[in-house]
Amino acid sequence: MTRVTLLAGGVGGARLAHGLDLALDSDDDLTVVVNVGDDTELHGLAISPDIDTVVYTLAGLNDEERGWGLRGETYATLEAMSRLGEDTWFTLGDRDLATHVVRTARLRRGEPLSSVTAGIAASLGVRPRVLPVTDDPLVTLVDTPSGRLGFQEYFVGRQHADAVLGLTFDGADDARPAPGVLPALTDAGLVVLAPSNPFLSIHPQLAVPGVREALVATHARRVGVSPIVGGQAIKGPAAQILETLGHEVSALGVARLYTGLVDVMCIDEADAALAGPIEELGFDVLVTRTVMGGPPGRERLARELLALA
Amino acid sequence: MTRVTLLAGGVGGARLAHGLDLALDSDDDLTVVVNVGDDTELHGLAISPDIDTVVYTLAGLNDEERGWGLRGETYATLEAMSRLGEDTWFTLGDRDLATHVVRTARLRRGEPLSSVTAGIAASLGVRPRVLPVTDDPLVTLVDTPSGRLGFQEYFVGRQHADAVLGLTFDGADDARPAPGVLPALTDAGLVVLAPSNPFLSIHPQLAVPGVREALVATHARRVGVSPIVGGQAIKGPAAQILETLGHEVSALGVARLYTGLVDVMCIDEADAALAGPIEELGFDVLVTRTVMGGPPGRERLARELLALA
Repeated sequence: MTRVTLLAGGVGGARLAHGLDLALDSDDDLTVVVNVGDDTELHGLAISPDIDTVVYTLAGLNDEERGWGLRGETYATLEAMSRLGEDTWFTLGDRDLATHVVRTARLRRGEPLSSVTAGIAASLGVRPRVLPVTDDPLVTLVDTPSGRLGFQEYFVGRQHADAVLGLTFDGADDARPAPGVLPALTDAGLVVLAPSNPFLSIHPQLAVPGVREALVATHARRVGVSPIVGGQAIKGPAAQILETLGHEVSALGVARLYTGLVDVMCIDEADAALAGPIEELGFDVLVTRTVMGGPPGRERLARELLALA
Repeated sequence: MTRVTLLAGGVGGARLAHGLDLALDSDDDLTVVVNVGDDTELHGLAISPDIDTVVYTLAGLNDEERGWGLRGETYATLEAMSRLGEDTWFTLGDRDLATHVVRTARLRRGEPLSSVTAGIAASLGVRPRVLPVTDDPLVTLVDTPSGRLGFQEYFVGRQHADAVLGLTFDGADDARPAPGVLPALTDAGLVVLAPSNPFLSIHPQLAVPGVREALVATHARRVGVSPIVGGQAIKGPAAQILETLGHEVSALGVARLYTGLVDVMCIDEADAALAGPIEELGFDVLVTRTVMGGPPGRERLARELLALA
């Protein structure tokens, strides 16, 4: 039996979670700990984009082409909300909205996000444990030349076009790891940092007191998968943020960020030349195809990572 | 210029409101005061069925065949909520849901229901003023042989099959009339009690301190339209409730309920034989076709009522 824990953000994390779910046997154990720094409230509804991307992908319901949201989605409610004068810059499909309505109602009844998430995931037939890193408020704020922006304003509203000068994980100091998060790190045989944005998806999780410490202390084999391939992000603003925050825009730059956190850096074949410099930092290096695409690519990468356990 | 105020519940009130809107000139003034005793919270959303029926009908968006909800409605969100384990006995369409999401968000921000309703109505191009009778909590509870039921549990959940032994308007004693309600009664030239259920749609409004008094004291001509035609309710459980609460199931029984509240009873041609007995109670009586059906029938009835002003 293999116990695997994945720290994940949105699409990259969701795809690798899916690959691990495909690769693991039924008696294996997968926990996906998910970033909540992107969570927001819109129209009075609690939106958890990373959790939903992971859950929808594991349920086989996600829109693979678009990378977010549900396949075959419709938008009748959002159009009607627009007619009622609501600002609808953040796209919410009708089926996706059901998740937000249900989550909001259950949270307002006092159920913690981790329990709400488990319920939604179970209803959608998801087998792995999907855990928000915390049930407490933790909000990523983005400092830009235009001032401090809420995460979704930066990411969706302004299409992550602003230079990122700094990041604040508001509330992190007072946040407690959700039930199961620390054991998932401590008791795992393999911990994987998904090819998610280090600053936006991984760092907010490490900012929750106890999480970084558990990752540092675990006896699990720890692997970080670089989201930077050939000097570019597979998706999203990771490359820009590495640059504006003064890091090398490469898998080597990512490896430096993960010093002390992982034992192995998994980098793409395109970056094979960086294996030596990364090894010099003290990491083992796995060179493989890290761009997953569809389910076969996800499962292949997952199997290579599992072989490290 | 004619100032008309209509006290309305759901479908019957909405149809007469529509008729009055069609019949009145642009410099006339129509206020529709609407029952909120049917309001409920489902899935954490604030649902105001009577307000929505009135607003949707005035906006020309209602489903005429079904009598409630929006025309051409879809149900993607509700189906997805059902998959997430929610109890979906109360049908909520995708476009209708937009109203509930928007209302809930605005109420939670502290906006009163009257203001939220005005905003929604304006967005949908509704000309008459639509006012909840109160911005405060007022909940109709239904005593039945099976115990006390919430209104929607009685009405939708159990299809108003239970005998009604009594009604409680919980919160009414502490409720204040919404801004504009008392002036709408005091300053009107004509006040109409819609052919809505007296017990479920009109009485909850009169239970708000000041409303009954304003209706009794107004110098307006006051007309009650009987929702009972030929001893049967046009729609809904009005006949059953008259019976179980010990009233005559007829327009005469309704007239007795409206003693002191209206000057004129408007009854259907089918009940012409009751005109004499109703006059003996001290009412003037208008005998006409009260079953409105579509817009022409609504406008015709409205014009007959306006002629009484």
